Amino acid sequence: MDHPRKVRLAAFLRDVWDEGRTDAVGTYLAPRYTIHHDPGDPWDGRELDVSGFRDRLIQSRAAFPDQRFDVQRMFADDDAVVATWLWQGTHLGDLPGFPATGRIIRMSGATAYFFDAADRLTGHWQITDRLGVYQQLMAGRTAALTASSP
Amino acid sequence: MDHPRKVRLAAFLRDVWDEGRTDAVGTYLAPRYTIHHDPGDPWDGRELDVSGFRDRLIQSRAAFPDQRFDVQRMFADDDAVVATWLWQGTHLGDLPGFPATGRIIRMSGATAYFFDAADRLTGHWQITDRLGVYQQLMAGRTAALTASSP
Repeated sequence: MDHPRKVRLAAFLRDVWDEGRTDAVGTYLAPRYTIHHDPGDPWDGRELDVSGFRDRLIQSRAAFPDQRFDVQRMFADDDAVVATWLWQGTHLGDLPGFPATGRIIRMSGATAYFFDAADRLTGHWQITDRLGVYQQLMAGRTAALTASSP
Repeated sequence: MDHPRKVRLAAFLRDVWDEGRTDAVGTYLAPRYTIHHDPGDPWDGRELDVSGFRDRLIQSRAAFPDQRFDVQRMFADDDAVVATWLWQGTHLGDLPGFPATGRIIRMSGATAYFFDAADRLTGHWQITDRLGVYQQLMAGRTAALTASSP
């Protein structure tokens, strides 16, 4: 973990995604951040500036404000660092079709992050286990409906 | 791509997964292959010997015999090579709940492969976009039911 870009990526995940510090986004991001591949992410395929990334951060964290990434391992090669990760957050905000349940939702994923020469993040390529999350949200909704039935 | 383990991983994906050559499995695999994390894979968490891996290969490829991996990029670090990939196969064999439709199914994923000192594969950690596949299979089933209705 002493590779400087691994250290920097760990700090980005902590400050920006775990703690939701919009003021820290500009520290880590290049002027343009491209989401190359991220199925299911509303920003998939888009190029964001720092302000656009802050909007994405705020909207993404709203449903799970206590979310935490647990990085399993990082792999550094050339301009990239890949992270394999587990994630969890309490479902405290509404999602489309899934009102907040207060349940802990778990997810896993892998993300390739790309850096420029100044060690700023220029984008990512990501896969998450969306089906696992969908199954947990469906189970939560079923439980809520059962509990509220007469 | 001239990193020797990247070349070796590309050959493994081609010979074993694209072409389904059970005779090639022993060339690439260590005596034990551990599936560390692979949500939805029936072999998730298991340790396979070469014979067990051949069984997995045959069963996994049965529904999509013309499957092809299109590697987007590889990342080598220490004992590992991570591949980000797209995949496609024609749904020619039945899956539980999803009879064969002849439709092309597409998937994307990221896999960290681990090597031993003899450059043999000792296991993987993988994420695939299962929800994307599920949605395509559901659309195919709906289309088949509609076509067969009186």
